Amino acid sequence: MAFQLTDTFIDDLRTALAAGNEDAVRGYFHGLHPADAAEILNSLDTDETVKAYGLLEDEVAAEALLLLEDDRREEVLEGLSPKEIAEQVIDNLDSDDAAYVLAELPDAQQDEILQHVEDLDQASDIVDLLNFDPDTAGGLMGKETVRVHIDKTVREAVREIRRQAEEVEIVYTIYVVDEDEKLVGLLSLKSLLTKPLNSPVREVCNPNVISVRTHTPVEEVAKLMDKYDLVVIPVTDSLGRLVGRITFDDVVDLIREENTEDVQKMGGVEALEEPYMSTPFWRMIRKRVGWLVVLFVGETLTATALSFFDDKIQKAVILAVFMPLIISSGGNSGSQATSLIIRALALGEITIRDWVTIVKKEFKSGLVLGLILGIIGFLRIAIWSNFVDDYGPYWLQIGLTLGITLTFVVLWGCLAGSLLPLFLKRLGLDPAVSSAPFVATLVDVTGLLIYFSISVALLDGTLL
Amino acid sequence: MAFQLTDTFIDDLRTALAAGNEDAVRGYFHGLHPADAAEILNSLDTDETVKAYGLLEDEVAAEALLLLEDDRREEVLEGLSPKEIAEQVIDNLDSDDAAYVLAELPDAQQDEILQHVEDLDQASDIVDLLNFDPDTAGGLMGKETVRVHIDKTVREAVREIRRQAEEVEIVYTIYVVDEDEKLVGLLSLKSLLTKPLNSPVREVCNPNVISVRTHTPVEEVAKLMDKYDLVVIPVTDSLGRLVGRITFDDVVDLIREENTEDVQKMGGVEALEEPYMSTPFWRMIRKRVGWLVVLFVGETLTATALSFFDDKIQKAVILAVFMPLIISSGGNSGSQATSLIIRALALGEITIRDWVTIVKKEFKSGLVLGLILGIIGFLRIAIWSNFVDDYGPYWLQIGLTLGITLTFVVLWGCLAGSLLPLFLKRLGLDPAVSSAPFVATLVDVTGLLIYFSISVALLDGTLL
Repeated sequence: MAFQLTDTFIDDLRTALAAGNEDAVRGYFHGLHPADAAEILNSLDTDETVKAYGLLEDEVAAEALLLLEDDRREEVLEGLSPKEIAEQVIDNLDSDDAAYVLAELPDAQQDEILQHVEDLDQASDIVDLLNFDPDTAGGLMGKETVRVHIDKTVREAVREIRRQAEEVEIVYTIYVVDEDEKLVGLLSLKSLLTKPLNSPVREVCNPNVISVRTHTPVEEVAKLMDKYDLVVIPVTDSLGRLVGRITFDDVVDLIREENTEDVQKMGGVEALEEPYMSTPFWRMIRKRVGWLVVLFVGETLTATALSFFDDKIQKAVILAVFMPLIISSGGNSGSQATSLIIRALALGEITIRDWVTIVKKEFKSGLVLGLILGIIGFLRIAIWSNFVDDYGPYWLQIGLTLGITLTFVVLWGCLAGSLLPLFLKRLGLDPAVSSAPFVATLVDVTGLLIYFSISVALLDGTLL
Repeated sequence: MAFQLTDTFIDDLRTALAAGNEDAVRGYFHGLHPADAAEILNSLDTDETVKAYGLLEDEVAAEALLLLEDDRREEVLEGLSPKEIAEQVIDNLDSDDAAYVLAELPDAQQDEILQHVEDLDQASDIVDLLNFDPDTAGGLMGKETVRVHIDKTVREAVREIRRQAEEVEIVYTIYVVDEDEKLVGLLSLKSLLTKPLNSPVREVCNPNVISVRTHTPVEEVAKLMDKYDLVVIPVTDSLGRLVGRITFDDVVDLIREENTEDVQKMGGVEALEEPYMSTPFWRMIRKRVGWLVVLFVGETLTATALSFFDDKIQKAVILAVFMPLIISSGGNSGSQATSLIIRALALGEITIRDWVTIVKKEFKSGLVLGLILGIIGFLRIAIWSNFVDDYGPYWLQIGLTLGITLTFVVLWGCLAGSLLPLFLKRLGLDPAVSSAPFVATLVDVTGLLIYFSISVALLDGTLL
């Protein structure tokens, strides 16, 4: 059964830490999975984290370090000497995870730590990995693979795998290579177990291997692994030689980060990179103030637009009363359209080339939704006019103005909200930037122009 | 290398389909992965999909069916007899996937199809699975597992696994059970390969198994698999007996669906369930109109609120000019806060119990962000007043009103935007419902009240 973190557990652990009772602290962490140890450490104060981390067993400590929040990991690493980092952390991690930890440190410190790594193969693997662009398969892969030669038999393969497996923590798949180390197939656990021991590997391996190159962008790696439900994908160099593998957990982390970024961008915030709770105050302000100011400056155009119509408002204050209703309806229909399109783009359901179909779809939807809101708006005024005299003798004209404006503003919101993400993507920008607030601001300014144009057309000579 | 779908490929396939050239069509699909076959079928028209589907090889056809868009899968299944569905689809799928296909069909048709399933074990497994709630581990699991008895040796285990592996498509992990079929450990491929053949399974297996019960909610399954980076998780019944397993691909699909729902809800749309492009017109309208009307009706409160202030607007039209600017600033800061909190809740970074910390954080952030926008707003008026005479002699009072209002409205937006998702969660509702449009509407009405209260306080006796 899985470990369940409770408040009592944290309280007891804190007491033991405060009392300096190291054996008790070790007891609390004994036998725990690194993910559980990390969960506990992330719930403590930062100085408690550093203290408790020093008491973990090396194997657990190395894996748990990967799962600490960024600022805690920094604190923990600052408390360790280069030799300790090499022996306690780097030597106990797979090459991809070790490279990940090192990549966050300054170059000089990286070199010093690598000098202390005992396993020379590991050190050289890490040096290789650090050279790759972190946004490519090379930057995400680990070098640990189990491989057999295509000219061997299943019996020889099993012997070879036994030898290699000692070095590799989890065996995902067995790769088949030729004499140049080129990847030519894979050997499933099933065929290894069920085929006669004297069958040649050549005959029992599966030559249809889906692999990526070291320079393949990570987004494409994620898409392939997702499409083909792969637990692990092999990575080859430009000559087709097997150089590493990427496991599903790294890709799941990547997808989660991208989803978080999308949600945050859609809310008009720059991607936070850290959990909400541990983002420092001024960094949080910086991530939010940029878009707020840009949207604010954009929105001051509404004041400029309205100052052209101040004589109309003076004549018919009732026009001002409906402004928030109209611009928010445009903004809401725009937010709906933009979130549907952004998600469909992210899932690959649509591409920019579908824009004509999308315009047709949104034109029809916008018209129907606009008519529905327009009719409700008209009815509200028609019914209200029997009870209050806000509208005077012109309730019909005011009702029609509101109804027609709402139809056009909602239609415009749907079109603008759906086309903006496509347009941003066409420019090579991230479509998720066209957040609900961004679309709303765009539709606000134009919505007011639509409103006053229709008002002037319908009310000139009566109210105006 | 992975298959790349091109327009030319689709055009050629279409021509072959139209000409009734079945051999050519078979040739286009030959050797393709089911995921690729499904991608091609999803790019055709629905009637072409049905025609082409009939020409796929059984193994590929069954797997590809799972990956078809919902309405296409329905069409394909309607074109097949119960016997064909049983023999071509159900017999070729793992029990979880077979149950998934059957669950979408009417009960009577399910029974008829199950009569035709040749493999009686498979039929009985499916009947078992259909009884589980689809939102629990039981409803997501497959029955296929490879298991060995704890009293055997590694040699006996290997022999037993060879026998069972014939039946199971992919061997993920080997489970160790006792005489009552209770799950007591797992045997890694690594220990199977590296331990001496005469070691007892009891000594080489790992007794720390993370498992779930059949009634565990799927969200919890997803969280556990994600936390511990599991490729597969075993499922036990209430007596601890091993009854099935859940694989990572099903969980990845689940997480993707939830993310999509969150993004759509945040945009103020009900979750679509189908891809954007294939959602029928009126269903799309239904998913969007509900929230739009609710928000519209909520927003009519702004008109009601404003009608109390129409005499103030009459006296000072300049107040109306800044309304959109003020309410949108409140709405934008609210959208930011709500999207940050929703995502942090979804990732488990915060819980409802953190609300005091969150209020403190958002109070400070809201105050700083509000002051920044307030100062910009004040400066705009102070500078403009030198060039235009919109503000008359009262530019200072108007500037202060705008600046102070912005500070309070943004502060209120941050507080409302962060607390609303927590409040919804507390009520047992989905926090993602507190979409950007929802928060914006809430802040619009209250923002106008704040605006006119401050205006009256500061401008009474001068402009008002």
